[in-house]
Amino acid sequence: MRSFLGIDIGGTNIAVGVVKEDGSLVKTLSVPTGAGRATEALVKDMIDTSRAVVTEAGLTMSDISSVGIGVPGAVTPDGIVLSAVNLGWKNVPLAKLVGEALQLPVYLGNDADCAALGEVLAGSGSEHNSALMITMGTGIGGGLIVNGKIFTGCTGCGTEPGHFTFVYGGEPCGCGNRGCFEAYASATALIRQTKRAMERDLGSKMWELVDHDMDKVNGKVPFDAAKMGDETALAVVAQYIDYLGMGIASIVNTFRPEVVIMGGGICNQGDYLMVPLNETIKKYCYASDLLPVPKAVRASLGNDAGIIGAGALQMSAESR
Amino acid sequence: MRSFLGIDIGGTNIAVGVVKEDGSLVKTLSVPTGAGRATEALVKDMIDTSRAVVTEAGLTMSDISSVGIGVPGAVTPDGIVLSAVNLGWKNVPLAKLVGEALQLPVYLGNDADCAALGEVLAGSGSEHNSALMITMGTGIGGGLIVNGKIFTGCTGCGTEPGHFTFVYGGEPCGCGNRGCFEAYASATALIRQTKRAMERDLGSKMWELVDHDMDKVNGKVPFDAAKMGDETALAVVAQYIDYLGMGIASIVNTFRPEVVIMGGGICNQGDYLMVPLNETIKKYCYASDLLPVPKAVRASLGNDAGIIGAGALQMSAESR
Repeated sequence: MRSFLGIDIGGTNIAVGVVKEDGSLVKTLSVPTGAGRATEALVKDMIDTSRAVVTEAGLTMSDISSVGIGVPGAVTPDGIVLSAVNLGWKNVPLAKLVGEALQLPVYLGNDADCAALGEVLAGSGSEHNSALMITMGTGIGGGLIVNGKIFTGCTGCGTEPGHFTFVYGGEPCGCGNRGCFEAYASATALIRQTKRAMERDLGSKMWELVDHDMDKVNGKVPFDAAKMGDETALAVVAQYIDYLGMGIASIVNTFRPEVVIMGGGICNQGDYLMVPLNETIKKYCYASDLLPVPKAVRASLGNDAGIIGAGALQMSAESR
Repeated sequence: MRSFLGIDIGGTNIAVGVVKEDGSLVKTLSVPTGAGRATEALVKDMIDTSRAVVTEAGLTMSDISSVGIGVPGAVTPDGIVLSAVNLGWKNVPLAKLVGEALQLPVYLGNDADCAALGEVLAGSGSEHNSALMITMGTGIGGGLIVNGKIFTGCTGCGTEPGHFTFVYGGEPCGCGNRGCFEAYASATALIRQTKRAMERDLGSKMWELVDHDMDKVNGKVPFDAAKMGDETALAVVAQYIDYLGMGIASIVNTFRPEVVIMGGGICNQGDYLMVPLNETIKKYCYASDLLPVPKAVRASLGNDAGIIGAGALQMSAESR
């Protein structure tokens, strides 16, 4: 069975793992990203950590078929990072830099795409060949797997399922447009919706949960208060699930995945979120009386998904 | 070079053609659909017309590799028409019925997908491997070609690019939801927008163009009046192009096709529509300063696109 190196460049850590062909993770190591550092320093850390993790796995570099790197940004099929805003990267020939040092072929992928690939290989999507993964965080990240490989769109720049117009002329979005799905269904959006509701209802239990400090509002607050029966919180949660379910149904109508894998802290709400969310998706899916409606499930691999998916990039490329 | 039979089941006519491997159309024949007739009668017409067109092309059935049929509805990969509302069909084993009679393999496709495939094989998309085709008519039809083959989504039921939420809680849509893109950018939607604007401006030139008869409003009226300088018509057209461009940008952000091929009567406006539309798409595309923005072009094959694409269904299946 072949082994691969998978590197996930996160905002906090660079995580490197040895990944087997079946999606199992043999060994991982991580180093702080230290975002803002020079590209050379980051690349050196990736190379040193790669060598270290291979040794700790009891292997040598000759046992490794290739290196896959998940990048928080847009990459090209020929190994260039077009842009990774949080790293301050633009047109960085990352595959060449890492490949020359390790003397291995290097495959680049978008980090959200890699997480989706990891979940389909070894996590919540392992019974499916096709999946949409959607992660609600600061923004909305997403990846689509079709027939076991990453669907990058035709230019290889990755899909952006958070940036379709959901409310024409609506809330400003980080991308410069207005009314994107992300601006209604990200964790950031839920926090904004919660704060606005609190401003309208000074008697809401949510105020107690945050010690009357608006800055302490997070995505868990409306759920906690809703479970306590707070009417305003119940309305915030119901509205958010309607946004989220309708937006997922929108993507399902165009992509028709077999399963929708959900990531992000909001998913820790478990069935309290997932049961009504699945009802909402089914309600809004096109021709749901005739066509199969994919189920939304929680991601199961956490941060490992990105490492496993990065390691699997060569396999994804081979099956094209 | 192989030859195929392509059958396009339209609302008015069933068109049958002999299609060559290079996408050229050797000969076509058509018969009235007579929607509402028994399935057996429609299938018999398809079979008789298939035999006739092969003979008229100077060929025999042994020269034909397969039959492809474009169906106005949802089909399964194993040859069943799940549903074709306008034909009154539900779970019709069309591939079996036609295949047994003609003793040929039969491939089914959605009619909009077939039109997209035809345009990529022999029309406006012929310089590209990947394309989104979108047709503004009563509703919004669409097809996506990826690497020269139809992207059907993971369940084989075809994509519905007109049914993502574009205005949450907005105009009612034929699918049962509210605010779908189709409800803002189809020809039907443009006519509704035009009528509402006329009701607000009884002095608009549009009233003269329709002899003061609201029932005569079609998608050409606002464009004609706009070209005459009518302010209300100019506003209707500008708003419509903003809807259309923002919706296409939404689909582009998720699919990233190389080109967007536009169909429907509204495209007869030519550059008057296409120039501002392309500016609008570029304005709203995600990261358009970094990533390539596909150009929107007019479809060039008219009704032939559906016949050619149906004929090419075997080739699309082979390249999977």
